[in-house]
Amino acid sequence: MKVSFKMFNGRFQTRSVVHIPLAPIQIPMDAPTEQQQPAQLSSGNDREAFRQTLWNTLLRRSFYLPSFKIYGGVSGFYDYGPPGFALKNNILKFWREHFVYEEHMLEIECPSVTPEAVLKASGHVDKFTDLMVKDDKTGTCFRADHLLRDYCNDKLEKDHLTISAEQASELKNVLALLEDLSCQELGLKIKEYGITAPHTKNPLSDPYPFNLMFQTSIGPSGQSPGYMRPETAQGIFVNFRDLYYYNGKKLPFAAAQVGQAFRNEISPRQGPLRVREFTLAEIEHFVDPENKSHPKFSNVAELEFLMFPREAQLSGQSAKKICLGEAVAKGTINNETLGYFIGRVYLFLTKIGIDKNRLRFRQHLANEMAHYAADCWDAEIEASYGWIECVGIADRSAYDLQAHSEKSGVALVAEEKFAEPKEVEQLVITPVKKDLGIAFKGDHKKVVESLEAMKEQEAMAMKATLESKGEVEFYVCTLGKNVTIKKNMVSISKERTKVHQRVFTPSVIEPSFGIGRIMYCLSEHSFSTRPGKAGDEQLGLLSFSPLVAPMKCMVFPLVQNQQFEEGAKVISESLTSIRISHKIDMTGTSIGKRYARSDELGVPFAITVDSDTSVTIRERDSKDQVRVSLKEAASVLSSVAEGKMTWQDVWASFPHHSSE
Amino acid sequence: MKVSFKMFNGRFQTRSVVHIPLAPIQIPMDAPTEQQQPAQLSSGNDREAFRQTLWNTLLRRSFYLPSFKIYGGVSGFYDYGPPGFALKNNILKFWREHFVYEEHMLEIECPSVTPEAVLKASGHVDKFTDLMVKDDKTGTCFRADHLLRDYCNDKLEKDHLTISAEQASELKNVLALLEDLSCQELGLKIKEYGITAPHTKNPLSDPYPFNLMFQTSIGPSGQSPGYMRPETAQGIFVNFRDLYYYNGKKLPFAAAQVGQAFRNEISPRQGPLRVREFTLAEIEHFVDPENKSHPKFSNVAELEFLMFPREAQLSGQSAKKICLGEAVAKGTINNETLGYFIGRVYLFLTKIGIDKNRLRFRQHLANEMAHYAADCWDAEIEASYGWIECVGIADRSAYDLQAHSEKSGVALVAEEKFAEPKEVEQLVITPVKKDLGIAFKGDHKKVVESLEAMKEQEAMAMKATLESKGEVEFYVCTLGKNVTIKKNMVSISKERTKVHQRVFTPSVIEPSFGIGRIMYCLSEHSFSTRPGKAGDEQLGLLSFSPLVAPMKCMVFPLVQNQQFEEGAKVISESLTSIRISHKIDMTGTSIGKRYARSDELGVPFAITVDSDTSVTIRERDSKDQVRVSLKEAASVLSSVAEGKMTWQDVWASFPHHSSE
Repeated sequence: MKVSFKMFNGRFQTRSVVHIPLAPIQIPMDAPTEQQQPAQLSSGNDREAFRQTLWNTLLRRSFYLPSFKIYGGVSGFYDYGPPGFALKNNILKFWREHFVYEEHMLEIECPSVTPEAVLKASGHVDKFTDLMVKDDKTGTCFRADHLLRDYCNDKLEKDHLTISAEQASELKNVLALLEDLSCQELGLKIKEYGITAPHTKNPLSDPYPFNLMFQTSIGPSGQSPGYMRPETAQGIFVNFRDLYYYNGKKLPFAAAQVGQAFRNEISPRQGPLRVREFTLAEIEHFVDPENKSHPKFSNVAELEFLMFPREAQLSGQSAKKICLGEAVAKGTINNETLGYFIGRVYLFLTKIGIDKNRLRFRQHLANEMAHYAADCWDAEIEASYGWIECVGIADRSAYDLQAHSEKSGVALVAEEKFAEPKEVEQLVITPVKKDLGIAFKGDHKKVVESLEAMKEQEAMAMKATLESKGEVEFYVCTLGKNVTIKKNMVSISKERTKVHQRVFTPSVIEPSFGIGRIMYCLSEHSFSTRPGKAGDEQLGLLSFSPLVAPMKCMVFPLVQNQQFEEGAKVISESLTSIRISHKIDMTGTSIGKRYARSDELGVPFAITVDSDTSVTIRERDSKDQVRVSLKEAASVLSSVAEGKMTWQDVWASFPHHSSE
Repeated sequence: MKVSFKMFNGRFQTRSVVHIPLAPIQIPMDAPTEQQQPAQLSSGNDREAFRQTLWNTLLRRSFYLPSFKIYGGVSGFYDYGPPGFALKNNILKFWREHFVYEEHMLEIECPSVTPEAVLKASGHVDKFTDLMVKDDKTGTCFRADHLLRDYCNDKLEKDHLTISAEQASELKNVLALLEDLSCQELGLKIKEYGITAPHTKNPLSDPYPFNLMFQTSIGPSGQSPGYMRPETAQGIFVNFRDLYYYNGKKLPFAAAQVGQAFRNEISPRQGPLRVREFTLAEIEHFVDPENKSHPKFSNVAELEFLMFPREAQLSGQSAKKICLGEAVAKGTINNETLGYFIGRVYLFLTKIGIDKNRLRFRQHLANEMAHYAADCWDAEIEASYGWIECVGIADRSAYDLQAHSEKSGVALVAEEKFAEPKEVEQLVITPVKKDLGIAFKGDHKKVVESLEAMKEQEAMAMKATLESKGEVEFYVCTLGKNVTIKKNMVSISKERTKVHQRVFTPSVIEPSFGIGRIMYCLSEHSFSTRPGKAGDEQLGLLSFSPLVAPMKCMVFPLVQNQQFEEGAKVISESLTSIRISHKIDMTGTSIGKRYARSDELGVPFAITVDSDTSVTIRERDSKDQVRVSLKEAASVLSSVAEGKMTWQDVWASFPHHSSE
């Protein structure tokens, strides 16, 4: 089972929700560095309870709002409420800084509505499908692989005492092969097991492919089918020529796009992880296939983090800490540029707050990867649902550009001009048109074209046969038959000529980020509970770093009076002027309760106005407090939020009160 | 004819491309303050030439890329290339600072795919249409009003010598009334004038409404119609309850959303102004209908700018400079909150670089405005196409929340808790169920409901009749007939009771920004040409302010050598570290040509590396240069870009060279 928001692997029909981990769930190798212990997710029940507590918090605090709720909602759609949007926006802002600005990428924006021709060329129209079955009586639709998986899991769990060892092994085998089952095989299994529609128990139709794109029609005629794009990448590929020109016809360069993508899931599950509309941030790095080195690779070569190479998966080992430089040197990772991006993705995810012990880079197995891909790694983050694919980093070779070149007739290629002309040996095929015309009359043009289209090996074999036997049988596919070519009809030779440039289709290395998934996993890694003052209550805490926290600061007048409220307004104005997001909470609620509410929203700092001249700044995770003058408060906060000062520096510079 | 990206006015069928200005095109009242003269747009030919020069520049420099170009393109879709995206992103970044952060708005994000129920309630499913005619033979579709308009304009222009004064006046009359013609009237005019399909000259079908939403289907069953949202506002309205709770049940507050909107135009025209997918930035400010004052109104009250009130339009005057405070005081603008937003929109547009002399706020005429709207003003920007509606600022009263309350059955209301209970006179209707039961048997429940639903006036009239005549005829609509109500069957009175709160539907004031239109108009206002050194050539110049310029700086090694290129890299690293967007141009092209290319991209500064230790900074508009040390260059640039220093300050502090 795969969490896949991209159709990396060419086997579009086999995506489902969560990886069955090929190795046991990773146990954190280092003790967490946070002060609070993350919820230990040792058993399924614990996970479920943790997830429910977090999800309740995220809904109650409006991080997520079920879309169109007042109309009963529509599954697979979530709105981001104010703190959710701010968190997402901060993640994207840092993404842009970390990738686009740092590497001078060409960021573009294309429409979501896409005409059929583009998605026909990319393969989505024909292959971006899931297999579906219908309840014969009610017409309700289900994903065929989900039903089969649920059946097998149920059987193994509930009937494990009554089924034979043989049956159990067969069920496990089906689960392992679920992704590889064809439409027909799935149908046969469903029949064999007598699987019926959930709830109604009605019989099911045979499985058939359902295209996951939202279809629409462009213009009023009804003659121009269009789709909501399933990924943003195609917009970059079709613009390759203009972008290459914009970049002064120089390789390598990267283009980027952030935007909505759409997937009309048959039956969305698992909350915000598998939705019908989501934000992708995609990078297409175009590079000469003959030189995939990266000038900045040394900046990341010494990073060490959890990798899960193909061989380790196949031999039943678990992910291991591996040095990035070594992984590239040994060929575990195909090339430096791919390695560079893997390193940069690791830095990005850990900087926003993903726990490095619950992050692994898993290499695609040979059967997961498209035939054209050179190598492919997924950044997977461990959450209560299992290991979630959040970023895919693939070397897709020349596939996409070639596909669009062929279908559009526009050459999407790059040129390397040689400083000095190079002498190369070139195959020269010269059909003798006069003799071919006499022999083949009206067909001779097709014969000429077929002769000219021969590749080196075929042509040299023909040359040898013609020289030894004087004639040869030659299959002309446009005629659908063999013709006899005689020695006088074609000359074949290899000649040394000077060439001034090399024309080639660039390879593309594609890091593709599912922003919503990263954001949800970050919430899981940031969430914990700690006891409140009142004995048995547990208070929620979202330990977002100031870099991504939806709001940087709360401002609390200690009690409701004019003096403190004036002070709060002064603070608020100074925070606004330096663009520190914040909110004044003027309610008369006790300061403890206000702190608790603020912790649950993930706000790193609170300023309590409790005098005319000075205020208390409280740090969320440690609950420590310092006294700072009213005038200095905003600038102290800004220094910490921007990383110019640590909380320890602040602690040392101002009168402080430790929570311990 | 109206440029409208919102369906403010309830008359959805009448939108078309450009205002026929009701007053003559505004001539700038002040001399422009820029050093370069903006292209004078006195005649139609000049405008066309100006627009063509600009558009060629914007396409050549990849601000816009026609979408799906390699597949022949699809009309009504444009991609933003790298500088176009950066310009748009900078405008949005400032929009967020100027509106969302400054006012602590609640920014949210909702899906573009929207189920039918939402857009049925909003009126879009039934009324968001344009009238279309079809070529009877080819099936090609046209907007009926466009064909009629083109016919009238052609006739007036080309045949003005042969048609009678009467005919001319009739044609002008049709043009003036174009927006108000019904489907039938449009059809009759097309028949009367014998208008045929362009090019083919085939007969046309009768006009019929075409819904402008892109339709799709949610989920696999085909049973759940959905649409791509035509505006982002509905997402905010349906979330009102959660947002009100999030805001601590306090009014006023504003929510905001930036995102894609979709409109399946019948025949898109005029390049980037009328496209099928575009970015809207919308604000919904919810306010107590009984108190539309605004605490920060005094911040904008003294602003003076071009306004075009209803009366001025009707009496044939042109737009005039009016003081905002006066306009609100005199009631020209309906209320302070609406006035506050008009002022803030004025500040936003002029700060990003819109020429204040080519910007006017035009009030909707009574017949343009929906019946429910309290007042509505459009920020219109003058471009080569005429006056373009770029921002709509409407007081939509309680309409949207009420519509969704009714259709969803969820009350979208606010409460005002009184500090002390208030004594009010309330109507009390008490049906005497026993007597009604005896009289009406099975029907009595419907009679009871109808009696209870009476409004004050009707009830008091019934009371009077019962008292004078003892009985009254009463129409029960659920029964579809009159019944006789006798005095014993109901008691009606007015009683004084104490109420503790007021429950009401908030009014909404909606500033709605067409970001793509603003961006295109800004390009027009920023573009000019100036002579190059080589005699007769004219060089393009986009004078974007550092606030929005797609790139802040170009870095030029003076000539291609290692020393200067090293210097350029040092500068580049220091600019990257302080997030100043820039590009190194290492080409050996002459420095003059590189400056010209940079001017055409709108880059405000260029740093030329021409020594080991110091560099030349050139300002784009003045072409002045200063010498600054290599180390200081980045920080000087950042000070100017962030507005901490003016170019004059820089000039005074460093050795300078004036271009004059």
